[in-house]
Amino acid sequence: MVERVVFFVSDQTGVTAETLGHSLITQFAGQNFRQTTLPFIDTEDKAREAVRVIDATAANGAPHPIVFSTIVQPNLRKIVKESVGLHLDIFDAFLESLADELGAAPEYLSGRAHGVSDIDAYMKRIEATNFALANDDGGVSRNYDVADVILVGVSRSGKTPTCLYLALQYGVYAANYPLTEDELETGTLPDFLLEHKHKLFGLTIEPERLRDIRRERRPHGHYSTTQQIRFELRESEKIFRRYGIPNVNTTSFSIEEIASRILDSTGVERRVRP
Amino acid sequence: MVERVVFFVSDQTGVTAETLGHSLITQFAGQNFRQTTLPFIDTEDKAREAVRVIDATAANGAPHPIVFSTIVQPNLRKIVKESVGLHLDIFDAFLESLADELGAAPEYLSGRAHGVSDIDAYMKRIEATNFALANDDGGVSRNYDVADVILVGVSRSGKTPTCLYLALQYGVYAANYPLTEDELETGTLPDFLLEHKHKLFGLTIEPERLRDIRRERRPHGHYSTTQQIRFELRESEKIFRRYGIPNVNTTSFSIEEIASRILDSTGVERRVRP
Repeated sequence: MVERVVFFVSDQTGVTAETLGHSLITQFAGQNFRQTTLPFIDTEDKAREAVRVIDATAANGAPHPIVFSTIVQPNLRKIVKESVGLHLDIFDAFLESLADELGAAPEYLSGRAHGVSDIDAYMKRIEATNFALANDDGGVSRNYDVADVILVGVSRSGKTPTCLYLALQYGVYAANYPLTEDELETGTLPDFLLEHKHKLFGLTIEPERLRDIRRERRPHGHYSTTQQIRFELRESEKIFRRYGIPNVNTTSFSIEEIASRILDSTGVERRVRP
Repeated sequence: MVERVVFFVSDQTGVTAETLGHSLITQFAGQNFRQTTLPFIDTEDKAREAVRVIDATAANGAPHPIVFSTIVQPNLRKIVKESVGLHLDIFDAFLESLADELGAAPEYLSGRAHGVSDIDAYMKRIEATNFALANDDGGVSRNYDVADVILVGVSRSGKTPTCLYLALQYGVYAANYPLTEDELETGTLPDFLLEHKHKLFGLTIEPERLRDIRRERRPHGHYSTTQQIRFELRESEKIFRRYGIPNVNTTSFSIEEIASRILDSTGVERRVRP
């Protein structure tokens, strides 16, 4: 299958162009894409260099590249669009109709979305990340009073990455507590968790998938046996039912999906937005 | 200032719609936006319910809402577009020209971007997150052989959130090592770091900003004094110069920007893409 080069070109980090482009190209599963990000294209010289890089990929009869871009300045966008390839730029597509609807002129300032403009949001994300780390894995802090949500589930059900993602992406204060033999054998949760029962959210997962994940970490031993895993999951799900804890099966979900489902289900407010 | 409601509507998590919309609305700084995400709009019933929610915000003469959406299924998109407001949808805007360029029909499958389709990418991000946690703050593991990059800098210069972001977003293996009295007073780095000198990347920050960040954590004491902070930053920058370690001043950058600048400067490959 012939390779199709995809560029994500941005006057800033390229995160928006990457996210946008990824949503679109994943609709074409049969294609062979090679992805390249060209960030910080914020001068005319850099824009011309980007054009050279893009044009080079189409030499010798290779198919035209796809260029997803987020370039605020019209003069830089114009230069980048001189390269070969299909150009899809969100400011080109949407900025004018948005300005019309708002009855306001855009500021054409690059770096607004992920930049210096919001130090307050930066601090909130950092503080939320520190919170997640201090309250990871039942951690020493147990500042459950200020937690927005407390994830519970067996080891490797996805609690830690989900908490970190909620913190970094949304500034949400997410703690997590692992269900271990103590809870699983008695079928009860400790009082310091039950005091915050309305903040609890459970993660569960299919046994086969959890076995794969655990074996990646510890190939041998009790921890990764099918029998142990089935026991833990069955008992953890009983606990969710017993206390009426909302929960999600993470088996086929990405970290983004698990996080979105938690926010959607609990109604926890995003403190910042990406 | 009259409030303008902004919706991010998606058949999946809403992350793409949020990212896209945020890039656009931040170009209009003077406006008063209230942002709401409606994720998992993946049936006709849910689409009709979304229309009711959107229409309700425009009752009583309130200005029309702005609706950023990423809805793959044309029938669901059609329903959502029946609501009042300005509708900006990336599939509407870009899918057809992309299909033309690729000479292929889109699959119209929702959930491709952040979903079940890529368990391998999920595992890579989890493993990278585990690596970042095990190698945080000079951590016990010091698996620097498999690190893609090792961030160095003084306490609270932004190392930990940047490593976690690189892991979660891109599956990059990022370790970090804090420069403490040992290194700062001797001006030398330990051998176990110098063995991987080509992987080192420095973070620095303005003294005033670092003071604010440290005082948030510990309002009093040596750690947060201007004198101590100036000493640490001056000596850490000397170390960067002495060993030729590329570095970035994080003062006015978001986590996304710091991460992008590191990838751009080091040439470290993204193992997965958002």
